[in-house]
Amino acid sequence: MRTSIATVCLSGDLVQKLRACADAGFDGVEIMDADLIAADESPEEIRALCDRLRLTIDLFQPFRDVEGVAPDVFERTLRRAESKFAVMRRLGATTMLVCSNAGTATDGDDATAARQLGALADAAAPHGIRIAYEALAWGRFVNDYRHAWRLVELADRPNLGTCLDSFHILSRGHDPAEIEDIPGEKIYFLQLADAPSLDMDVLSWSRHHRLFPGEGSFALVDFLGHVWRAGYDGPLSLEVFNDTFRQTDVSRTAAHARRSLAWLADRTAAQLGWDDGQVGGAQVPTGFDFVEVGGAALDDVDQALGQLGFTFRGRHRSKPVRLWTAGDARIILNEQVRDQTTRVTGVGLTVPDADAAAERAFALGAPQAYRRTYTGEQVLRAAASPDGTEVYWNDPSPEKDWESEFIGGEDRPGPLRGVVDHVNIGYPWHEFEEALLFAGSALALTPEPVSEVPGPMGLLRSQVMRTADGSVRLPMNLAPPTAPVPWRHIAIRCADVLDAARRARSAGLPLLQVPDNYYDDIDAQFGDLMEPGLLDELRENHLFYDRDGDAEFIHLYSQVHGSVFFELVERRRGYDGYGAASAPVRMAAQRRSA
Amino acid sequence: MRTSIATVCLSGDLVQKLRACADAGFDGVEIMDADLIAADESPEEIRALCDRLRLTIDLFQPFRDVEGVAPDVFERTLRRAESKFAVMRRLGATTMLVCSNAGTATDGDDATAARQLGALADAAAPHGIRIAYEALAWGRFVNDYRHAWRLVELADRPNLGTCLDSFHILSRGHDPAEIEDIPGEKIYFLQLADAPSLDMDVLSWSRHHRLFPGEGSFALVDFLGHVWRAGYDGPLSLEVFNDTFRQTDVSRTAAHARRSLAWLADRTAAQLGWDDGQVGGAQVPTGFDFVEVGGAALDDVDQALGQLGFTFRGRHRSKPVRLWTAGDARIILNEQVRDQTTRVTGVGLTVPDADAAAERAFALGAPQAYRRTYTGEQVLRAAASPDGTEVYWNDPSPEKDWESEFIGGEDRPGPLRGVVDHVNIGYPWHEFEEALLFAGSALALTPEPVSEVPGPMGLLRSQVMRTADGSVRLPMNLAPPTAPVPWRHIAIRCADVLDAARRARSAGLPLLQVPDNYYDDIDAQFGDLMEPGLLDELRENHLFYDRDGDAEFIHLYSQVHGSVFFELVERRRGYDGYGAASAPVRMAAQRRSA
Repeated sequence: MRTSIATVCLSGDLVQKLRACADAGFDGVEIMDADLIAADESPEEIRALCDRLRLTIDLFQPFRDVEGVAPDVFERTLRRAESKFAVMRRLGATTMLVCSNAGTATDGDDATAARQLGALADAAAPHGIRIAYEALAWGRFVNDYRHAWRLVELADRPNLGTCLDSFHILSRGHDPAEIEDIPGEKIYFLQLADAPSLDMDVLSWSRHHRLFPGEGSFALVDFLGHVWRAGYDGPLSLEVFNDTFRQTDVSRTAAHARRSLAWLADRTAAQLGWDDGQVGGAQVPTGFDFVEVGGAALDDVDQALGQLGFTFRGRHRSKPVRLWTAGDARIILNEQVRDQTTRVTGVGLTVPDADAAAERAFALGAPQAYRRTYTGEQVLRAAASPDGTEVYWNDPSPEKDWESEFIGGEDRPGPLRGVVDHVNIGYPWHEFEEALLFAGSALALTPEPVSEVPGPMGLLRSQVMRTADGSVRLPMNLAPPTAPVPWRHIAIRCADVLDAARRARSAGLPLLQVPDNYYDDIDAQFGDLMEPGLLDELRENHLFYDRDGDAEFIHLYSQVHGSVFFELVERRRGYDGYGAASAPVRMAAQRRSA
Repeated sequence: MRTSIATVCLSGDLVQKLRACADAGFDGVEIMDADLIAADESPEEIRALCDRLRLTIDLFQPFRDVEGVAPDVFERTLRRAESKFAVMRRLGATTMLVCSNAGTATDGDDATAARQLGALADAAAPHGIRIAYEALAWGRFVNDYRHAWRLVELADRPNLGTCLDSFHILSRGHDPAEIEDIPGEKIYFLQLADAPSLDMDVLSWSRHHRLFPGEGSFALVDFLGHVWRAGYDGPLSLEVFNDTFRQTDVSRTAAHARRSLAWLADRTAAQLGWDDGQVGGAQVPTGFDFVEVGGAALDDVDQALGQLGFTFRGRHRSKPVRLWTAGDARIILNEQVRDQTTRVTGVGLTVPDADAAAERAFALGAPQAYRRTYTGEQVLRAAASPDGTEVYWNDPSPEKDWESEFIGGEDRPGPLRGVVDHVNIGYPWHEFEEALLFAGSALALTPEPVSEVPGPMGLLRSQVMRTADGSVRLPMNLAPPTAPVPWRHIAIRCADVLDAARRARSAGLPLLQVPDNYYDDIDAQFGDLMEPGLLDELRENHLFYDRDGDAEFIHLYSQVHGSVFFELVERRRGYDGYGAASAPVRMAAQRRSA
């Protein structure tokens, strides 16, 4: 598989973009005409730089406003094309993208359009240039890939083919299955973009909200399957217009983009029953192995875990690391991280085959995380997620367990028994999409629908990534741009949160203060449905409550330690959410106590 | 006129919001239930605080999911309502907003809906509470204000009326003229919001993109005219959900919100032929009086203006201020601003009546700007715009001129003659809407359609505010969030920019370097239409070019001084734009030379 990317996806100037594409491992690029026009370097210099970087120039794009115009207008179009052919020769580019006319077209007759496309191809031929004609979703007369292909067939030139763009096809809801009716060798180019499901005009959607494959809601695996089955063997190229990516670090975005193609190719090859040999099968996690909190001084976290009812299981025999457990929930406190505020530094996942999971993540371009390990210690393989949090994989087998490395802990277990229910992770705006792709590809989690939670300083976008059975849940939040360092919290699920809350209070745990008005509202909403006395218990123990039909969710929050806090949750009768309705109350209370 | 605002418009906690509303001069507030629920203060405390701040609680909102439900569901609704009535009594609130059912409605029969609304009103009556029923644009069965009013009529209760919300009515394209058919005393409340013209689903549009009156494209003056003619005499209240305002400083947003109502009431009263006596008529400017550049050391700007062909007109007789002119274009350099990077600090506008313009701006809530003036000096009245730039007004009469305060300048005029064509102003994201409202209300400028300009670090949103005749133009740009301090530039229009460019070059002005690729593209686009030799002249003199039909625009840029640069422009045959197509090339070149 060859990979390519349009320079318009990235920030910076053309030279910076090309360097980042090469560093990220792309084989080629689409040169955007506007990027070249704004560049100080001549086309010859760009060509030479691409040669040195071993990047092919797979496409020169876009050339607009060609077909369906009056004869005198078309004459000027040919003149403009000759200028651009000259630029392409200087660049060494041999394929020109022509978009269907969204501006100057006045004649909707297919014969006119085909004649003019044919004439353009004839003008390109002496230069050794071929024309890839694409239907824009908002083209004046041509906005369907099947129509674009009919015009290419009608014009019938050896150097005229079509370009397929997943956005233009899927955003209009056109069935991609008919792609298989197009001969593979006439598909000159393939542009890939994902997008969130948004109900807005297609031009704004396209210009601002495209995403890399795996981050949106388009069925791109099916789409690419059709293209490959049609016999297309050219590069998979990304053309993603997105306000965020245009502003973020160019190298990071290019690496992120490259990972999205690896994921897409892998999934598509798997679905087609091919094996491309690069990326193994997905290892869906079966639970949290542990969650690690790092920081320079974590005594306050030790105290809070103790008060929550966790058991102190001792210190690591070779590192300044401590272990606390509550049944199957394991929290590691790591004071090796000396220069940081207290934060979630690692998440361990249990998977059927840890080596396979790690290898797959590395093949998908996730950077390997390194920690020193001593003889006799369990080696866990880990990758760094986009925000720096390390993800570890472990097998479920008892001999792969690492608890015995901790010594000097309590013999008698504390009162709390549970499992890690979810880890809630906040991201700054420029890391969010990348993190979603990482969770979907490297961690093999699946998205729930996006929701929005109002906070005291703006709406939070929230996207839960989880396993189907709910054994691993990562609610991921996009913090507003003015928010400080995003908070993260670790939620422990237990069987009796009322009992846990009472014990924690009597152990002196300072709980988050919940306003009385909140309980009045819970009474207004659910008072008649709740078991007698429960509301008073909630109020007395600073507990939050949610209800969905008969299912109930009762939960409480600790105070914040650096950027971390803890939640205890009880899910009754299959409650499957996260108590989002109370999030504004919780955030306001945290803001008051900060 | 009484003014009110929904607490949901603002950031922070409820107490902060209330204080900001009072400081901004609002008479009352709509208390959002969610804000109260998240508040630590009891309803009694909030009531007492509002009393002390002299804020009335005009509305408690929203109460949802009332009408069109099954009888057992409605029974639970009444129970929930009783709880909220109790909260309202504690608050001292007497009007409850009920939104049309967008969630639980299953029965679309008007009789059912009217019966249930009537029953709710009956339950409210003993508490002295009245119900204001509003059609949400996305209500399940009721999404038109006329339908909501029919149900209110059908239910026919003395304490049941309707609430009108400009967003819900205008976003659906419903004709507001029929508001006049509703008796004024049955319009219990009026919520006002503006919005940009966007083609997206109405729920997202409403939740994220509402604007304060005067900032969007709704015909709110007409809308309010209908409401007033119907006989409504309650408060004008703002309900604006907007991601930006929820994150910006609460006091500033509240002041900004209050200004938008003053503007709207003023415009509406004027249109109805009423005179509310608060705000005088708009003074449309007839030209730029001057532009002021401030900074600690401006020698480099002196040099650049001299090289551009400006005439040095001397130093101010009492201040460290210098004047440069080029025909009618006047640029003041002010070194009193000692702690700042070089920036545009003031803009002077010529208006028919300067005092009236200033009084109007102050009545619209613009803060007065103060500068020390000595005996015998011309006093110009000024207001501070939202970003701190001072705006001065001057009369066109010669005796009001201030040039004679500058002494020791050149006798012989320099070669450049022109006028200030436009001042291009960049804003950070949180100041943009406020600046648009200021330009539209206090400066009496009119918006052109919004455009988007791709820059090397993301798309720039651009909105030109101008007079109809083009004598004053302020292109206002929204910089991407990662951009550094926004740049601003001053464009001087002259009759022969080629000549000016040649002179400036021979005077040694370092011009912005324009890449060769740009001229190749201009040739491709327009080479056959341009006069012979022009392309070579452009290339030689670092000039930019645009064309619209036969109209041409030729312009050049100076280097950047702090955050300021200069542009010389020539408009041929009525060119009316700003050369936006070349902006990416210009920005990339500036980035290279930075």
